[in-house]
Amino acid sequence: MTQLFLRTLRDDPADAEVASHRLLVRAGYIRRQAPGVFAWLPLGLRVRRRVEAVIREEMHAIGCQEVHFPALLPREPYEASGRWEEYGDGIFRLKDRKGADYLLAPTHEEVFTLTVKDLYGSYKDLPLSIYQIQDKYRDEARPRAGLLRGREFSMKDAYSFDVTDEGLDVSYQAQRDAYERIFSRLGLDYVIVQADAGAMGGSRSEEFLHPTPIGEDTFVRSAGGYAANVEAYRSVAPAAQSLDGHPSAEVIDSPQTPTIATLVALANEKRPREDRPWTAADTLKNVVLRLTSLDGTKELVVVGLPGDREVDLKRAEVAFAPAEVAAATEEDFAAYRGLVKGYIGPWSPSGAVLGKGSSTGIRYLVDPRVVDGTTWVTGANEHEKHVLGLVAGRDFTADGLADIAEVREGDPAPDGSGPIETARGMEIGHVFQLGRKYAEALGLQVLDENGKLVTVTMGSYGIGVTRILGVIAEANHDERGLVWPRNVAPFDVHIVATGKDAAVFDVAETLVSELEGAGFDTLFDDRPKVSPGVKFGDAELIGVPLIVIVGRGAAEGRVEFWDRRTGERDEIALHEVLDRLRDAPQ
Amino acid sequence: MTQLFLRTLRDDPADAEVASHRLLVRAGYIRRQAPGVFAWLPLGLRVRRRVEAVIREEMHAIGCQEVHFPALLPREPYEASGRWEEYGDGIFRLKDRKGADYLLAPTHEEVFTLTVKDLYGSYKDLPLSIYQIQDKYRDEARPRAGLLRGREFSMKDAYSFDVTDEGLDVSYQAQRDAYERIFSRLGLDYVIVQADAGAMGGSRSEEFLHPTPIGEDTFVRSAGGYAANVEAYRSVAPAAQSLDGHPSAEVIDSPQTPTIATLVALANEKRPREDRPWTAADTLKNVVLRLTSLDGTKELVVVGLPGDREVDLKRAEVAFAPAEVAAATEEDFAAYRGLVKGYIGPWSPSGAVLGKGSSTGIRYLVDPRVVDGTTWVTGANEHEKHVLGLVAGRDFTADGLADIAEVREGDPAPDGSGPIETARGMEIGHVFQLGRKYAEALGLQVLDENGKLVTVTMGSYGIGVTRILGVIAEANHDERGLVWPRNVAPFDVHIVATGKDAAVFDVAETLVSELEGAGFDTLFDDRPKVSPGVKFGDAELIGVPLIVIVGRGAAEGRVEFWDRRTGERDEIALHEVLDRLRDAPQ
Repeated sequence: MTQLFLRTLRDDPADAEVASHRLLVRAGYIRRQAPGVFAWLPLGLRVRRRVEAVIREEMHAIGCQEVHFPALLPREPYEASGRWEEYGDGIFRLKDRKGADYLLAPTHEEVFTLTVKDLYGSYKDLPLSIYQIQDKYRDEARPRAGLLRGREFSMKDAYSFDVTDEGLDVSYQAQRDAYERIFSRLGLDYVIVQADAGAMGGSRSEEFLHPTPIGEDTFVRSAGGYAANVEAYRSVAPAAQSLDGHPSAEVIDSPQTPTIATLVALANEKRPREDRPWTAADTLKNVVLRLTSLDGTKELVVVGLPGDREVDLKRAEVAFAPAEVAAATEEDFAAYRGLVKGYIGPWSPSGAVLGKGSSTGIRYLVDPRVVDGTTWVTGANEHEKHVLGLVAGRDFTADGLADIAEVREGDPAPDGSGPIETARGMEIGHVFQLGRKYAEALGLQVLDENGKLVTVTMGSYGIGVTRILGVIAEANHDERGLVWPRNVAPFDVHIVATGKDAAVFDVAETLVSELEGAGFDTLFDDRPKVSPGVKFGDAELIGVPLIVIVGRGAAEGRVEFWDRRTGERDEIALHEVLDRLRDAPQ
Repeated sequence: MTQLFLRTLRDDPADAEVASHRLLVRAGYIRRQAPGVFAWLPLGLRVRRRVEAVIREEMHAIGCQEVHFPALLPREPYEASGRWEEYGDGIFRLKDRKGADYLLAPTHEEVFTLTVKDLYGSYKDLPLSIYQIQDKYRDEARPRAGLLRGREFSMKDAYSFDVTDEGLDVSYQAQRDAYERIFSRLGLDYVIVQADAGAMGGSRSEEFLHPTPIGEDTFVRSAGGYAANVEAYRSVAPAAQSLDGHPSAEVIDSPQTPTIATLVALANEKRPREDRPWTAADTLKNVVLRLTSLDGTKELVVVGLPGDREVDLKRAEVAFAPAEVAAATEEDFAAYRGLVKGYIGPWSPSGAVLGKGSSTGIRYLVDPRVVDGTTWVTGANEHEKHVLGLVAGRDFTADGLADIAEVREGDPAPDGSGPIETARGMEIGHVFQLGRKYAEALGLQVLDENGKLVTVTMGSYGIGVTRILGVIAEANHDERGLVWPRNVAPFDVHIVATGKDAAVFDVAETLVSELEGAGFDTLFDDRPKVSPGVKFGDAELIGVPLIVIVGRGAAEGRVEFWDRRTGERDEIALHEVLDRLRDAPQ
């Protein structure tokens, strides 16, 4: 430690919101260079290398081969895939001295695809899985939480190439299994949740989430094993009911119904139901959204959903991607006439209002719960008028579904495995069947067994290397500092020499040599004029899990063995140190 | 090889100028993504990792600690050092979504300096040497020759921090020694040449050049051990002579002297010298240059040099850096009156023309050979007039020296070690005493032993990792392919199974297992339907130096051992393979 480029800090960095950020900076692992951009000091780099080693071993074990692609890439392939536009402000773009457009790659689907296209041409060349551990760039609007959301960050990204869907399933499963082993070895809790393939256009997509209250993602799970992120949750539609036997719809005056509760009360007063009273869940709320497609085209859509639920904008973004979603503005209402604000409904006394062939022609989508035969209280699209008992499938028909209502604890899991609960998680990995989207966009085809050109099907598999380092730190700390799992700690053991007695330092140094010789990476606190208290404080902050204190007892061959994780300290004989290290739990 | 992500190519890439580029692409090591930007395929990445390992070991051996800094960095520190401007078009600049300026770092002096400033504050913390192996960016005007001049490239850059000049010398020497070991281990010839510190403002600077005809640098060396790049060569000034005893200068009409030769002939005719005839070396050629400083200020200077030498523009660039140098244009002559083009000289019949207090006031610099007492034939600054016998120090005085004349074979080495010869080389390393320039610009001070703040002195040490890989390939190939030195080859041994006999493949596979078990990284050509000729061709192209052919003799326990370097192939017993590998020369 007299040599190590390290300075532990007393004070928390001003911008640190979470413990991992605070402690990694204070303990001298990383140092901020710009928002979301960090330098890695020796301790941090050591942990990073150990995390990378685990990932490399597991990639190697499934035959996934390492390559290394540039961060600086030309615009054209990203133009061809559509991502140059899709990323909006989210990527760093730049020009070279000749004015050619470049980007700093956020991920590398395009150039991996093109390289395979350049080199391979036959089904015999496949399957192929290749990966890299490489620095990536995203111009995050709000870089935060240290390593948890950075703008320059290291990722392991792998890509698989197969001829058949079944081949893709095998490649996907191999990566998924490797991810399970990687996170287990890193001591990281995870939940595998279904994710929405969204605009990427793939078929199967799962995220590895580490459950943590500081997670940026909300996910749902059931006791019966279902798990999905909120965007991927599919609402359960009730069975369709008969269209017959419902009384006809009735238009009522509703001047004093500023809220759903007042509307429900009015409905129960005007036309009480026999079986049960009207509730908010029986009202059909019609939300007007403006969609802006990538080419700038704007469209209004109306989504009908049960009045007891709000629209979840994140779910809406995924459902409508790559279009952008926003609430309609006054200007929109002015431009698209025919919608009576506050009283919007699919039907009015003068006929159909929304959907194909209606008076507005505006596309009408409904929540999956709005199945045929359900009856609703909703706007009559006339000022101060609602309609009671409007029957889906009889009185109105939607153009399609929009599953964008908020998800609630207690909602049923779509696989019938019981009610769901919600939790927060941090994405630490993502496995993704891209299918043929990129191969089609970039023309990656190979000859099949019959000499016919077929488009290759792909998978993409990512782990945020620097992010999981932050997540490990977050999951392994206490109020005094970091407490690393043994297999990612920057050193295997931390030897602290205390006091001023040169003989003690000699004993410590001999011990260090012995441990290094036995293959233990050893951090030696050899600082001559630093008090034991400061040394112990630094040791706790740095968080090497196993510590040996060489102090006054050294003359009699006694040292203290300190497990940072349990806090246990006990005196042992010098010659026992090696065995204790070997026997200590992972 | 049935699994490896590799496709060897028959044809040379269209843009390849040099053998290393051609072969590294054809043999499947690298793949172009944009001008000067390459992807690393599995074979290339393996070589790169081996080169890096050698560098890391030698850095570790001198106590230089590894860190990792971002490529994406904010403008401010580079603004403070002046490099944001100095680099001109040579760096990639970009803006983030908030409009803040960033660059892709070409090297990291600034942020290393600031990080040491952040963390350290006392002389006791120093000396410190830290390094990284990291991807760097330069927007080269003409990226060329594959890995030899790229726009995204990997560099090992190290920085040392010392309190005293003597400390810097020690840190510098340690790096210099490490570089010698690194290049020796990589089997790379090198010459250490003095380099010009130039605009970087340091004191000592040496380049490691690999002598090669395709090198971009010219260097000079003497048999007595002097070596310098051409920009750093210092011309040897003759001893000053007496100003007395020279006849007075004489103005002559010189209407028909379009060349130096005609002028010399005229001089010898008009006023023959007693000791020897006038030669071109006795004419004083006055070259008008325009200097443009970083802030855009323009200045004309005139440089007088012997007429038998041209200005070397690269030497001039270094001599006048950071100002830009160009030949004066017609506009310059029009703007700066008083210079009679074609007849410029420091003196005219009406008095001093150049220098302080002269008729033009333009700064006048001379070649070091223009010492006091030398006599010259030069322009009289009047149309069709020259002057003979103008004596330096008597008839004109320069404002200073400009050592920018071309260097020639046979010129004396400045250290008296004999005449020099010139050669071409490729820069593979650079060690550089930065001194206090960056520490001053960025305020890096520490308390010394007396509690006084002192500015730290720094060194900077670079090796182009990807470039030296290209240089190694360039130095180790023949017409059939690459021929790697053993310690950087992508594999230790290449096993080629030939024929269609399954038993042969079984023997080969057993051998592969045995060799892998013994710690030899083995490339196994297990392709079942590829002819021996194609396999041998690929093996030669890929260039693993030791090859074992398992063919028909396998049944009798015989294989062929093939040294790719010497071309020798001899039959040996299977059980001898391991010993042959162990005994093969490096």
